Amino acid sequence: MTDLVSSVLSGNRRALARLLTHIQNETDEAGRALAALYPHTGRAHLIGVTGAPGTGKSTLVNALARAYRQQGRTVGIIAVDPSSPFSGGAVLGDRIRMQDLSGDPGVFIRSMATRGSLGGLARATGDSVRALDAGGFEVILIETVGAGQGEVDIAHAAHTTLVVEAPGLGDDIQAIKAGILEIADILVVNKADRPDAPQTVHALRAMLDLGARGPHDRWQAGALLPAQTPSTPQASGPARWDTPLAQTVALDGTGIPELVTLIDRHHDFLRETGQWKRWERTRLEQELAGRLQDALLARLLKETPHATIQFVLDQLVSRQLDPGSAVTHLLNNSHLSSSRYDQAGASSS
Amino acid sequence: MTDLVSSVLSGNRRALARLLTHIQNETDEAGRALAALYPHTGRAHLIGVTGAPGTGKSTLVNALARAYRQQGRTVGIIAVDPSSPFSGGAVLGDRIRMQDLSGDPGVFIRSMATRGSLGGLARATGDSVRALDAGGFEVILIETVGAGQGEVDIAHAAHTTLVVEAPGLGDDIQAIKAGILEIADILVVNKADRPDAPQTVHALRAMLDLGARGPHDRWQAGALLPAQTPSTPQASGPARWDTPLAQTVALDGTGIPELVTLIDRHHDFLRETGQWKRWERTRLEQELAGRLQDALLARLLKETPHATIQFVLDQLVSRQLDPGSAVTHLLNNSHLSSSRYDQAGASSS
Repeated sequence: MTDLVSSVLSGNRRALARLLTHIQNETDEAGRALAALYPHTGRAHLIGVTGAPGTGKSTLVNALARAYRQQGRTVGIIAVDPSSPFSGGAVLGDRIRMQDLSGDPGVFIRSMATRGSLGGLARATGDSVRALDAGGFEVILIETVGAGQGEVDIAHAAHTTLVVEAPGLGDDIQAIKAGILEIADILVVNKADRPDAPQTVHALRAMLDLGARGPHDRWQAGALLPAQTPSTPQASGPARWDTPLAQTVALDGTGIPELVTLIDRHHDFLRETGQWKRWERTRLEQELAGRLQDALLARLLKETPHATIQFVLDQLVSRQLDPGSAVTHLLNNSHLSSSRYDQAGASSS
Repeated sequence: MTDLVSSVLSGNRRALARLLTHIQNETDEAGRALAALYPHTGRAHLIGVTGAPGTGKSTLVNALARAYRQQGRTVGIIAVDPSSPFSGGAVLGDRIRMQDLSGDPGVFIRSMATRGSLGGLARATGDSVRALDAGGFEVILIETVGAGQGEVDIAHAAHTTLVVEAPGLGDDIQAIKAGILEIADILVVNKADRPDAPQTVHALRAMLDLGARGPHDRWQAGALLPAQTPSTPQASGPARWDTPLAQTVALDGTGIPELVTLIDRHHDFLRETGQWKRWERTRLEQELAGRLQDALLARLLKETPHATIQFVLDQLVSRQLDPGSAVTHLLNNSHLSSSRYDQAGASSS
């Protein structure tokens, strides 16, 4: 075991910070450390907090963190900013707002901004959460700025997803909400002291009643195996979670204890119904699928001469080959060269 | 050539509508038709229109479509709604707003909502654009609702990307803007008749001056080949495009002719500097990479017994195997079984 790994396991904050930097820079060291830390993960309760800009997500995350600390639970916070680091404004703003937590050794905060693709960010987020989990943090809050589907995917890497709304957002945003509602385990109307809050609460309740299917559909899709394989742990009993609506004023702490209770109730629900394990398995299946895709493409590229790829691209650009046929061509080419290699290896042994 | 393909090529609207439905439902027929149509693509000017909710994107898209029609150019519109079809509100709203265009045979409008993943939506959008391109539409407007990075990726599938802003959006949204600015070929401040428009214009100009790197970086990343391979067409001359800022009032058409001129200027810039071809190649390279990943994973799953995958997943869940080692295990297993198959095939022939 490396120094970095043992330091993270023993709760050394500087080692953890160093590991998170390795993860963000996608170094080999990060991969090695995460592999070694992996047996020590899977313990923390992962809570995603997402919603449109202006809803007060960051303030809510801070209020939740404070509440957990008062209960003696340790808290990790990953604030994900899918906008690029062009201004740095949002991330910096979060850090300043979180200053009152930063002296507490029971809290660890990390902001993450996009470097490349959203997929890369999602993986770095997942790895960072895993590092905090191995570091012994009991509750991990994953905050995402933004309201798009991409951000939703990041929030999916959580056991419990909070969707935060605020009163007085326009019709256009309402439509976006619809999509985001489906992934909510708990719906939070923040800034609930505003005069127009009752209307928003009323409208959201109506949407919930209208038949949001509940978020548990997302655990059925099989990335690698058919969804209904026998060994997949199934929920026992009538495992139905009706998304509750919480009202908070994060700025002064109103409604925060009630929200913490709801989150704990969802945690217990997941544990008691077996959905926690099902979630875990599905998430690992999806991660494995993504990693396999990356590794398979890397292997294909290693086996295929650059000239072949150039040729296929030229043919695509000049419309002499369509994308589907290009794939077939490259797969067959690589397969032939790989099997020739195998036979040569077999005959020389 | 099938009936569907020849009908689409001859400009039959019902055939085109049928094909788009096939694409959205991901049928085999869609794949066959797109392969046959592929030689007839690559002609249209693809224009992405993106921005936060409430900026008046849809109205702007309609105003642009009307302006193009007055010039005698045919227009396809793909309105992408990454929120799920829970309410259907946004999509329906767009359709109603576009009613004044719907009697015109020179305009084709299609709304698309998420079925599954954002990746799936991006692919369906790309395929739909290709279908409209093959159908002879000269200008294709790709409108995305939302402001997240995921939506940005969809807008990337365009030669020219318009980022639409409106006066009076809050600080929090400002931060999101920062990321989106980088991908703008043309920045549009819509609702420019509002009293607070000058401040927004001023702030955005300052951000542009501050050093948005310009959007052309995105064409350098090599999904399959190193970025600087010799045969990649390079821009000739000092191919620098300084993102202009346009002011419009889409509702009454103010500034639309000027915006159309800017878009045409960007089109000519891309053509004259060779960046059009470079864009085309990079986009096809990215598409090929994604398709290869999907095909490779499908092949691996076909070659690997379900029991093996179940076993690996069990080990992952119980933390006896880490994800990196799981990938290695599955790759080697598949490789062995595949090479055994090849050898058996070779010795029996």
